[in-house]
Amino acid sequence: MPGLTIKFKDMKKPEIFSTGRNHTAVNVGGFDSVSDYTMIHPRTGAELHKVFLKEPTGSTGTEISVQSIAAGTEVPYFHTHNHNEETYIILQGQGKMQVDGECFPVREGSFVRIAPQGMRGIANDSDGELVVMVIQSREHSLREHTSADGTPFPVDWR
Amino acid sequence: MPGLTIKFKDMKKPEIFSTGRNHTAVNVGGFDSVSDYTMIHPRTGAELHKVFLKEPTGSTGTEISVQSIAAGTEVPYFHTHNHNEETYIILQGQGKMQVDGECFPVREGSFVRIAPQGMRGIANDSDGELVVMVIQSREHSLREHTSADGTPFPVDWR
Repeated sequence: MPGLTIKFKDMKKPEIFSTGRNHTAVNVGGFDSVSDYTMIHPRTGAELHKVFLKEPTGSTGTEISVQSIAAGTEVPYFHTHNHNEETYIILQGQGKMQVDGECFPVREGSFVRIAPQGMRGIANDSDGELVVMVIQSREHSLREHTSADGTPFPVDWR
Repeated sequence: MPGLTIKFKDMKKPEIFSTGRNHTAVNVGGFDSVSDYTMIHPRTGAELHKVFLKEPTGSTGTEISVQSIAAGTEVPYFHTHNHNEETYIILQGQGKMQVDGECFPVREGSFVRIAPQGMRGIANDSDGELVVMVIQSREHSLREHTSADGTPFPVDWR
């Protein structure tokens, strides 16, 4: 009689589909399936449905993450940062956030920029899924921006 | 007989709904109404359905924009950057991108990181709307990232 075999499902990972000297392109999947990603927060032990993109895309100026927060649940800690600004972008659904004691509702299309020192939390107090993207970048690191940093060229599709 | 009166519609702008010492929160609106935003690109004269978020959110590490590209149309120029890395994130729909002559399809959930020197273009070759977010940040500016830059605290909703 064969022994029990414990099977672990492979952890879902972003799929790299195009790379070159100056780019890396990955597919995360549709934003209604972000809940398929699972990670354990290394400092709190919390199980999160979240995927980080810095490593798979090879980015050097941002850490981008996407997270699914189930109806009636919350990220189980508040937090501050040392050096990084964060922008929270609600991709789907609605919920609430709190920064430095001020609580406000957020919904699809809300963009919340938070300085490193801001004490922040996020919860899904709705009855639907909340999908949120967070952009981390070094505070005060941007110099040129918008079109001032760019140089346009004629369209040249191959 | 009264003269003709030309009426200009007010340009749509993100609505700031919460501010504090460490944060600014704005609502852009649902991602299926990004086409309501209009701007003229200052260097090419192109009319784009695009909104920039650095100024309204007061961010200092990123320039975030959201753009709607109508079915069968394209951003009418390719471009490079001087100092900023870009990450293109497809929020809705599908289309194609090209970087340094390599052309590939993109769809909801695609993340494309491009170094400043990459010659890039994007087009919507589908029959639906394409909604794309672009994150600009200074190349090589990020030091600590993910949870290493953060300090967790107990949840403390007010």
